Amino acid sequence: MELGVCYYPEHWPSEQWPVDAQRMREMNIRWVRIAEFAWSRIEPSPGEFDWEWLDRAIDTLHAQGLKVVMCTPTATPPKWLVDQMPDMLAVDAQGHQRRFGSRRHYCFSHAGYLEHSRRITRAMAERYGNHTAVAAWQTDNEFGCHNTAISYSDAAATGFRDWLAERYGDVAALNRAWGTVFWSQEYRTFDEVDLPHLTVTEANPSHRLDFQRYSSWAVARFQEVQYQLLKALSPGRPVSHNFMGFYTEFNHHEVAANLDIATWDSYPLGFTQDFFLSAEEKVRYARTGHPDVPAFHHDLYRGMCASVRADAPAHGRWWVMEQQPGPVNWAQWNLAPHDGMVRLWTWQAFAHGAEVVSYFRWRQAPFAQEQMHTGLNRPDFSLDQGGLEALQVGQDLTALSETMPPNELTVRNRVALVFDYDGLWMGQIQPQGKDHNGLALAFRLYSALRQLGLDVDIVSPAAPLAAYELIVLPVSTHISADLLEQLQSSTAQLVFAPRAGSKTLDLHVPLQLAPGPLQDLLGLRVNRVASLPPGFEESGSLLNKACTVTGWFEDLALNGAQTLALLADGRPLVAQNGRACYVAGGLDGASWISLLENRARAAGLTPQRLPADLRVSRIGHHCVALNFSAQAIAWSPTANASVPVLGEASVAARDLSIWRLE
Amino acid sequence: MELGVCYYPEHWPSEQWPVDAQRMREMNIRWVRIAEFAWSRIEPSPGEFDWEWLDRAIDTLHAQGLKVVMCTPTATPPKWLVDQMPDMLAVDAQGHQRRFGSRRHYCFSHAGYLEHSRRITRAMAERYGNHTAVAAWQTDNEFGCHNTAISYSDAAATGFRDWLAERYGDVAALNRAWGTVFWSQEYRTFDEVDLPHLTVTEANPSHRLDFQRYSSWAVARFQEVQYQLLKALSPGRPVSHNFMGFYTEFNHHEVAANLDIATWDSYPLGFTQDFFLSAEEKVRYARTGHPDVPAFHHDLYRGMCASVRADAPAHGRWWVMEQQPGPVNWAQWNLAPHDGMVRLWTWQAFAHGAEVVSYFRWRQAPFAQEQMHTGLNRPDFSLDQGGLEALQVGQDLTALSETMPPNELTVRNRVALVFDYDGLWMGQIQPQGKDHNGLALAFRLYSALRQLGLDVDIVSPAAPLAAYELIVLPVSTHISADLLEQLQSSTAQLVFAPRAGSKTLDLHVPLQLAPGPLQDLLGLRVNRVASLPPGFEESGSLLNKACTVTGWFEDLALNGAQTLALLADGRPLVAQNGRACYVAGGLDGASWISLLENRARAAGLTPQRLPADLRVSRIGHHCVALNFSAQAIAWSPTANASVPVLGEASVAARDLSIWRLE
Amino acid sequence: MELGVCYYPEHWPSEQWPVDAQRMREMNIRWVRIAEFAWSRIEPSPGEFDWEWLDRAIDTLHAQGLKVVMCTPTATPPKWLVDQMPDMLAVDAQGHQRRFGSRRHYCFSHAGYLEHSRRITRAMAERYGNHTAVAAWQTDNEFGCHNTAISYSDAAATGFRDWLAERYGDVAALNRAWGTVFWSQEYRTFDEVDLPHLTVTEANPSHRLDFQRYSSWAVARFQEVQYQLLKALSPGRPVSHNFMGFYTEFNHHEVAANLDIATWDSYPLGFTQDFFLSAEEKVRYARTGHPDVPAFHHDLYRGMCASVRADAPAHGRWWVMEQQPGPVNWAQWNLAPHDGMVRLWTWQAFAHGAEVVSYFRWRQAPFAQEQMHTGLNRPDFSLDQGGLEALQVGQDLTALSETMPPNELTVRNRVALVFDYDGLWMGQIQPQGKDHNGLALAFRLYSALRQLGLDVDIVSPAAPLAAYELIVLPVSTHISADLLEQLQSSTAQLVFAPRAGSKTLDLHVPLQLAPGPLQDLLGLRVNRVASLPPGFEESGSLLNKACTVTGWFEDLALNGAQTLALLADGRPLVAQNGRACYVAGGLDGASWISLLENRARAAGLTPQRLPADLRVSRIGHHCVALNFSAQAIAWSPTANASVPVLGEASVAARDLSIWRLE
Repeated sequence: MELGVCYYPEHWPSEQWPVDAQRMREMNIRWVRIAEFAWSRIEPSPGEFDWEWLDRAIDTLHAQGLKVVMCTPTATPPKWLVDQMPDMLAVDAQGHQRRFGSRRHYCFSHAGYLEHSRRITRAMAERYGNHTAVAAWQTDNEFGCHNTAISYSDAAATGFRDWLAERYGDVAALNRAWGTVFWSQEYRTFDEVDLPHLTVTEANPSHRLDFQRYSSWAVARFQEVQYQLLKALSPGRPVSHNFMGFYTEFNHHEVAANLDIATWDSYPLGFTQDFFLSAEEKVRYARTGHPDVPAFHHDLYRGMCASVRADAPAHGRWWVMEQQPGPVNWAQWNLAPHDGMVRLWTWQAFAHGAEVVSYFRWRQAPFAQEQMHTGLNRPDFSLDQGGLEALQVGQDLTALSETMPPNELTVRNRVALVFDYDGLWMGQIQPQGKDHNGLALAFRLYSALRQLGLDVDIVSPAAPLAAYELIVLPVSTHISADLLEQLQSSTAQLVFAPRAGSKTLDLHVPLQLAPGPLQDLLGLRVNRVASLPPGFEESGSLLNKACTVTGWFEDLALNGAQTLALLADGRPLVAQNGRACYVAGGLDGASWISLLENRARAAGLTPQRLPADLRVSRIGHHCVALNFSAQAIAWSPTANASVPVLGEASVAARDLSIWRLE
Repeated sequence: MELGVCYYPEHWPSEQWPVDAQRMREMNIRWVRIAEFAWSRIEPSPGEFDWEWLDRAIDTLHAQGLKVVMCTPTATPPKWLVDQMPDMLAVDAQGHQRRFGSRRHYCFSHAGYLEHSRRITRAMAERYGNHTAVAAWQTDNEFGCHNTAISYSDAAATGFRDWLAERYGDVAALNRAWGTVFWSQEYRTFDEVDLPHLTVTEANPSHRLDFQRYSSWAVARFQEVQYQLLKALSPGRPVSHNFMGFYTEFNHHEVAANLDIATWDSYPLGFTQDFFLSAEEKVRYARTGHPDVPAFHHDLYRGMCASVRADAPAHGRWWVMEQQPGPVNWAQWNLAPHDGMVRLWTWQAFAHGAEVVSYFRWRQAPFAQEQMHTGLNRPDFSLDQGGLEALQVGQDLTALSETMPPNELTVRNRVALVFDYDGLWMGQIQPQGKDHNGLALAFRLYSALRQLGLDVDIVSPAAPLAAYELIVLPVSTHISADLLEQLQSSTAQLVFAPRAGSKTLDLHVPLQLAPGPLQDLLGLRVNRVASLPPGFEESGSLLNKACTVTGWFEDLALNGAQTLALLADGRPLVAQNGRACYVAGGLDGASWISLLENRARAAGLTPQRLPADLRVSRIGHHCVALNFSAQAIAWSPTANASVPVLGEASVAARDLSIWRLE
Repeated sequence: MELGVCYYPEHWPSEQWPVDAQRMREMNIRWVRIAEFAWSRIEPSPGEFDWEWLDRAIDTLHAQGLKVVMCTPTATPPKWLVDQMPDMLAVDAQGHQRRFGSRRHYCFSHAGYLEHSRRITRAMAERYGNHTAVAAWQTDNEFGCHNTAISYSDAAATGFRDWLAERYGDVAALNRAWGTVFWSQEYRTFDEVDLPHLTVTEANPSHRLDFQRYSSWAVARFQEVQYQLLKALSPGRPVSHNFMGFYTEFNHHEVAANLDIATWDSYPLGFTQDFFLSAEEKVRYARTGHPDVPAFHHDLYRGMCASVRADAPAHGRWWVMEQQPGPVNWAQWNLAPHDGMVRLWTWQAFAHGAEVVSYFRWRQAPFAQEQMHTGLNRPDFSLDQGGLEALQVGQDLTALSETMPPNELTVRNRVALVFDYDGLWMGQIQPQGKDHNGLALAFRLYSALRQLGLDVDIVSPAAPLAAYELIVLPVSTHISADLLEQLQSSTAQLVFAPRAGSKTLDLHVPLQLAPGPLQDLLGLRVNRVASLPPGFEESGSLLNKACTVTGWFEDLALNGAQTLALLADGRPLVAQNGRACYVAGGLDGASWISLLENRARAAGLTPQRLPADLRVSRIGHHCVALNFSAQAIAWSPTANASVPVLGEASVAARDLSIWRLE
């Protein structure tokens, strides 16, 4: 549990640097991330490097004992490079070439830029790979931000065709996999294949899915070039990348697979305003963020990188690389967090197992695009509210350093939520109903589990599942043979959401119909599916309580399964076959909670309905309770719990309490 | 009254074909449509034809006595052809060239593609024109689907200029017709005329209207090339095309004029979700479709083709070529029809005079774009709900074969609704209010007539009108001299909606003001028109009942007309002059029903307010009552009607009853 | 106070011209604007001029004593010119070249078109500059209409680079001003700078602001070429331009600076429907327009041109060049004004100091884009309702000619609203909340002042302010040193809206934080700002009454200021420091009125809460009361006022009364 900060020495007079470094140290900050947007200062003209300022900045930080996370600056290639190779710019779905003037203006498929990425990474790694202060690396910055993972450039078309030739070998195999006989789309060679955009009506879905997979692969390859160089030239330093929230354009399990540390950038208020929450939630959580928005990603990215511990299958190394410190500038509406929230969010990350929480940024820049994005300090160099709270976390950490030693902070959870990017894409490509949103469903089921006080691992469909007693599969549109085998050999309770197993790997309807390979396990078949327009609601009962269905409904033919819920007209809504359970429609939130509570009990877990806006996490020997509400909440982990090691016995408003469990 | 089905042998193993054919026959299916998307299988490489599989497929169907509707495959030109002539691709209104990868990726104006269309049509007609099994043809598939009737390509620009030169002869005539003196748009030659898109603000409305007319003409010409070849090479077989629902981008009266059979593709649930119905209607009719959505098109397409019978002016030959069999994949929300609806829709088509109802499709394809579109059979080869209902219709038909012989099924109606594509376009080009929608108004007036139990012919503005006693003109923005003469010499009651006669043929305001040539007939002049924003409502009274006006209002100067309705402040709302009646504003639905009931009585008809969601049709000597509601409805055609020949005396829910009338 | 009309002789047979001219004179119309769209008639082919018809038209008008406002026809370059120089067409933000076919299809930066503008202006000025009938000129027509002030053409890129080189001299200065070190955007030369569009995410805000400034400069330069020619070749004739409503794409204070007369085009109903008013207001004011929509612009354009009188700082010469005469064709919904409104609007303009009110247009054109736009006369040559009301105004003017002599009609107001285009752009470029709308705020504060019966000057941030006793600054995002000095030396009460002083001239956050240079004057600092999503509301109290805050809130650190309003939790909402007052959030409308009333009283003014939808103006020795409501309103300027010189003692519905003040 350490603190970090993102710092841009190039934005400030060098006289300020030692003052800043000293104040960081005084605030108990240990890590400083630098240089991810500094290419134009590092190499102001082609081949002419200016290392002097960066050497000095690193030394200044080092002098205060701060550890540096050094970044490759490839997210912002300078103008001279773009002018040299204009076709390195990405092309959007409408066929417009994107232009220089902001950031992330490159196409992952462009061979020339890949070479320059290698060149600048090598130059930085050779310069700083063995510097004592440089203790970790970050590749690039927020791959895919501003929807840049997918480019429709000529370079992408060429790369895609090569990838297809590699994947299918024979164009006849591609034609079968895509079903191109439909609408006379058959290809005679791989060279005939275009990118799946600007078509008259929807392009072939398998074509689209493969292009999404190719684009994800291209991101992974781009990073892999940097990763290999950094591992070779900077021995002993972990390599990380900072992922984003609610972002699914590439397969993060694939891109993170080789990383030493997965990090992500946590902006609870911005994500609450900009994503799929209801208008009422956007108001209710306007200044705290929805409690589960950070947690969902903490649990997702904890299970992502290569450093998963043998004894804790979903506990890899992970950080929050950018923590929201106050109002940001980029959401539709940008509110100020309530006092206390910056500290609360920081502790929430630690409670989910973060090694480091690093604030973005040390000081608000008074110019350019993010001038309205706050930092720990204001542009007038005074400490802002977020800075005050970071200071308090630094003091908390000192106070708890003996009670909560790092080696005790392992997360070991018994509930898994399987998160499948491929499955999400299948649903995005074939939504069937205008408002189908697999990501939202995954989040809602996660949130239901968290409201029941359950600690959750979010895992890849390839993760080992033996350790879990309850496994929830919200977006497992395709069930691989390996996953099927794991599910069959597991003893866990299994909960499948609608559409589970409804597609083959090539994005076909299984010939035996949905849920495809799960039919035996579930004792049922899906006869047909319907999406339901806004205002169309079916009523029914679940576990003896009224429930409603909106958005989606599937007609099931039961073949051995029992029902846990029925529509009013008797059609099955939730079916159970032994320890496997299938939900056939868009359940209301309260019913999801009831169902998961029931299944958790069946799994031998002890779910507990938490007070509204309280969340609880167990980490090592400790229990952390976080209160997102405006009132103190009386809650304790056990009937006669000891005095908290941090916080009050009654959890204060927008505050937390930590108990040591016996 | 026969059944058909759309079948894609190329999607299935050939071993399955005889099984399928036998099952079709057993279900009383008589017609099988094939090959409309099979070009890449028929001609896999330029000039290399593979007829073998298609020969075999036809023979297999023939062996079961099935009649084939053979299609030209021009809706899906293969990739190799597009690569040969990339400029055959259409260009959208934003100037983007559309790309290969779905369907309908061609420009109707492209001379090279027109030649290839001729070549493939000739090849197919030469191969199968005299095959015993081939009993009918279909040109292409759904002209204009995905908004493809209009292309802004260079080929279209050239074609448009030639068409203008032909139409106007002299560019001075064009300048007068378009009023180009306005805004210095005068042209010196036809070559100076561009396509009317990408202009800074709206393009000249007459320019836009002429481009719409040209585009419609180009569709008709494209089809005519195929039609002439098919008539020459496949003697005795009728030629058809499958039109769409709520689609107005070309003039269907023009494109269908030479066809032997007009067919259309009926998807009641999809149309209910995707078009202009209210949110409340989209929920209410989510699983039945709005009762009048299929009927409106049945009555429209019945009056469309060349085969109109001398004794029934709006009874041409017509089919439903694609009947929705279950959930589809392409609407915003895709619901499952209530059990019974597929049979109900089929009978509804027969009740409006359809020769054949053909289901789309025999079996759901498990791959590619339409894998979520159901068929009569599921991908696992089992019969789906739609299949079961088709089976029952097959049995119904057998049972009724003697009671309802084909030669007795003529439709003879006394109410006409004049549907004018040119008039619709004028309103679309100059809506004057953001929500003006002539098509919606035409549908609402049609629906009002149907709720009054009246059988309606939807006719072209050039149709003979002498047979009618009530004529409704919802979108007759322009009144031609011929139509005026027919209206003057008619003895029918006439009901004109707002904007009737408000434009000249060239889309000018008539110098004598609206309703232009109707001023004498109506005894009034329109002094000014206003469109009304949402929430702005005027109240008044119509035939002694309160009424409201929204959306539109016109100030009338009466010159002999009486008023049937007034606004509260005394302004005239509905004016009557003898047998002609003009509505000057956006009446509420109930008031339209009252007004049309009043006018129908004046016409000597016997309108009857039907129970909600019941519809009634008379065909030959029979009366068909269709119940779209969830409850049985007690209704019979006469006070002491005999026992129905099909169905119950009280019309069952989502079912029908047929009485033979004495 | 004179009447005018817009006339298009080229649209009508020349036999009609003398009839029209005679009727104009009979209606007391004195001015006729002509020729602004007539280029294709004046120069039908390159270099071949046809003056004959225009000579005749002018002579016809002259024969009736009518004065001509002659226009340069540069808003509609003819097709032959566009074909000669296709790159003269503007390019939109998506990079699409706009096309010929409507109007305003030119790029202000195109050197070739600038030369043709000079050529045609010279030709017209040489022909008519000394014609007795030609009494004024208008440059072009509605600069910027249809969003044409900004073009992303190659010509614009070149022009912008030159302008930047001129502005900054040294590219290092540009890099500093824009903060390009952020995101590695540093430029090595001015030639590396692109236009700020099509970037991956938002472009640099200072880059965008400078491009907006450049584009505004290019409009001013375009006009200046015409202005200089007209002044040289048509001595003694004032030169004007007709500006638009709620249009802010260029800096009107800059573009109008040299003009002799500022005119604008007033369409109260269209503006009410198409802009930011609430849905309820759009219904309430559907047929009258919001009372302050015309007034806001009258007061804005009165302070705009070079001819400001020494004794009345915001009383320059101004006209309404186009007055809405009835329903128009271009708004989302186009209603008919209530009877009386055309006359009311005309008098409203006179009451705010207009020299001339000129109706658009004499007669509705029955063809082309504006065929649904009414005129004073209908296409059948009969006088429309607007014409009848213009006739009455003509009679009013005759009746009042002695009571209200022109030399007494000076406006002298004590309240100023500072309107800063640069400040507006800063807020548009960095809205920080999705619904931030500085223009709407300026309008709401103006309206609040008007509801308090106060007469307002809307002035540029460079205007002299010494004459005012209350100064309201709704959009002064940047405070220049000159403005600061004026505010400091003023004795007026000052009211600043949120964001005042929050940016430097280069669009940075001031290093001392907002309100920047105002900190001392206001005795406070803004610690942070938050935008608030819809439905998020803070409550508080202002001057002992409940108030609410939506949309925006700033945390203030008070440093000497007192509070006039607080949130419920004690945070300051309105702070006062001596005569300066700062509002820190999005106040509800009633609270704004209370606050401004309080500040007006403090300024020694006598605000008076007017009856709903009544507005009052003082001009010279007269008081004009305008009643926009449907009921008569008893109101008079003083307790025992004399009999009105026009209208009733109780102001009739949709009518006005004028009193001579003693």
